[in-house]
Amino acid sequence: MKQTTCLAGGIGAAKFLQGLVEIIPPEKLTIIVNTSDDIEMHGLHVSPDPDIIMYTLAGIVDEGKGWGMENDTFNCLNMLQKYGIETWFKLGDKDLATHIYRTQLLRSGLSLEEVTQRLCQSLKIGPRVLPMTNSKVVPQVITEAGKMHFEEYFVKRGAVDKVLDVILEGTQSANPASGVIESILDAEGIIVCPSNPIVSIGPIIAVNGVREALRETKAKVAAISPIVGGATIKGPADKLMEGLGLEASAFSVAALYKDFLDIFILDEVDKNSRMEIEELGIETIVTNTIMRSLEDKIELAKLTVEALN
Amino acid sequence: MKQTTCLAGGIGAAKFLQGLVEIIPPEKLTIIVNTSDDIEMHGLHVSPDPDIIMYTLAGIVDEGKGWGMENDTFNCLNMLQKYGIETWFKLGDKDLATHIYRTQLLRSGLSLEEVTQRLCQSLKIGPRVLPMTNSKVVPQVITEAGKMHFEEYFVKRGAVDKVLDVILEGTQSANPASGVIESILDAEGIIVCPSNPIVSIGPIIAVNGVREALRETKAKVAAISPIVGGATIKGPADKLMEGLGLEASAFSVAALYKDFLDIFILDEVDKNSRMEIEELGIETIVTNTIMRSLEDKIELAKLTVEALN
Repeated sequence: MKQTTCLAGGIGAAKFLQGLVEIIPPEKLTIIVNTSDDIEMHGLHVSPDPDIIMYTLAGIVDEGKGWGMENDTFNCLNMLQKYGIETWFKLGDKDLATHIYRTQLLRSGLSLEEVTQRLCQSLKIGPRVLPMTNSKVVPQVITEAGKMHFEEYFVKRGAVDKVLDVILEGTQSANPASGVIESILDAEGIIVCPSNPIVSIGPIIAVNGVREALRETKAKVAAISPIVGGATIKGPADKLMEGLGLEASAFSVAALYKDFLDIFILDEVDKNSRMEIEELGIETIVTNTIMRSLEDKIELAKLTVEALN
Repeated sequence: MKQTTCLAGGIGAAKFLQGLVEIIPPEKLTIIVNTSDDIEMHGLHVSPDPDIIMYTLAGIVDEGKGWGMENDTFNCLNMLQKYGIETWFKLGDKDLATHIYRTQLLRSGLSLEEVTQRLCQSLKIGPRVLPMTNSKVVPQVITEAGKMHFEEYFVKRGAVDKVLDVILEGTQSANPASGVIESILDAEGIIVCPSNPIVSIGPIIAVNGVREALRETKAKVAAISPIVGGATIKGPADKLMEGLGLEASAFSVAALYKDFLDIFILDEVDKNSRMEIEELGIETIVTNTIMRSLEDKIELAKLTVEALN
């Protein structure tokens, strides 16, 4: 059966996927998720992007924040703080169960893809969720305050440091998880979700063979711009792009994907970039990309899927 | 400075210590705690007896249950259950912080005694709390349903299985933690708390050199009977003793300690055992040993300390 395959980061992708699952049957959907911002917190393996995607698809995400589980408490975290431990990464009590279970399964010898599969089964998630790799990839942000993990730059320090560079450590030896390449080559349509092009989509594409598969596949590839009016809806993509010497614009995102991208969906506020992007050989669609309601999400998903047909 | 040194298990010992800390300054008190029922749950190192003692001394124990932290929630555990994990060991959310922190420190290379010291500092506990050993000792209960860890026998299965034997695995290679032997040899008084003689006090005494130190020390050794009227106040000591072919009685407990015990404090209901115990060469004191109120605890502690002088 022909699949639609998505490349996904965290919150932006999760919102888009909430719409997509309303129009594509779960068994026809594969989601390749960024695992580069996986981080060990308090000895536990935390997978921020996969968790956001899984919780969202399971209908248990904290909709207000876009991450974590709904109706969660923070009693363990508060107690960890009393033990003098840094608690800038806000792990809820229910959320902790995921990290405890994942860590235990990984220590027992399972791979990240096997663990992700188990979690998805328990959470009764229909679409296939694949981590991009079982290897460790670390997005290091080089700032004026020094080199730090992306989560430290973003969550701990609030993205206040001037970015000089971003290095994706470990990509040279990162091989794709099972099914990643096949799901790209065999897809009938590929969607690059509206996620950070530097530290979410960038790492997925940097995994061995993924960029090549995106170029080779016969499926059309569509991306939704995560940059609207020169800024990000969520997260620090704009600051990271500027740190890399790129303009924070829809055009810059399209240019980063130009070797494999067929269709670029950008917001109405950026319609003036249309011609510039089409000159890269990429078809453009201008629409409302801001997803406030479920209707917004479904509209955007429909438009994207129709463009891929 | 001369010390009073206690040998302690879980709930019974913790109750007694609540009284003792009211009459002995913290810097004069050393508590050697059983770690034989330490168990790995969900990949986390849980130390049931040290936690009961620490939470009690820190004034944060759940007084109703006698274990766990007060006002705790169980959101993580409920989520672990949704992941299909066995959750018979009731770990609260705040309580989990202790196990997460302990596990992380142990994995970083610290010994159990160093970890215990850190936890006690964070919880602002005055008396010195020493784990009996840094090694792994496992109390295996041989039952008609097979061999199982004491916590499985007691907490998971509710102590319903007929006990055939108890084996303390690992005691041959278990060396005492720093300060254990010295705190016995240099004490001015030693108290064996009202704890399970088979799986709480038994393992402490089985650690290399501890029984010998108890025999050698010039300090008097007093024990409070955990058996009252042929039954335990808390826990399955009576069932374990019967499984070992012992009568579940104050006398049997005194007999187990007879090579190092000077004073045995038993309950009024057991006053008829007095003579029999004194025939073992052990002085006896008959009193109310049931600790319902703080006053009861202080009374029992006072009586014990006075007997040691």
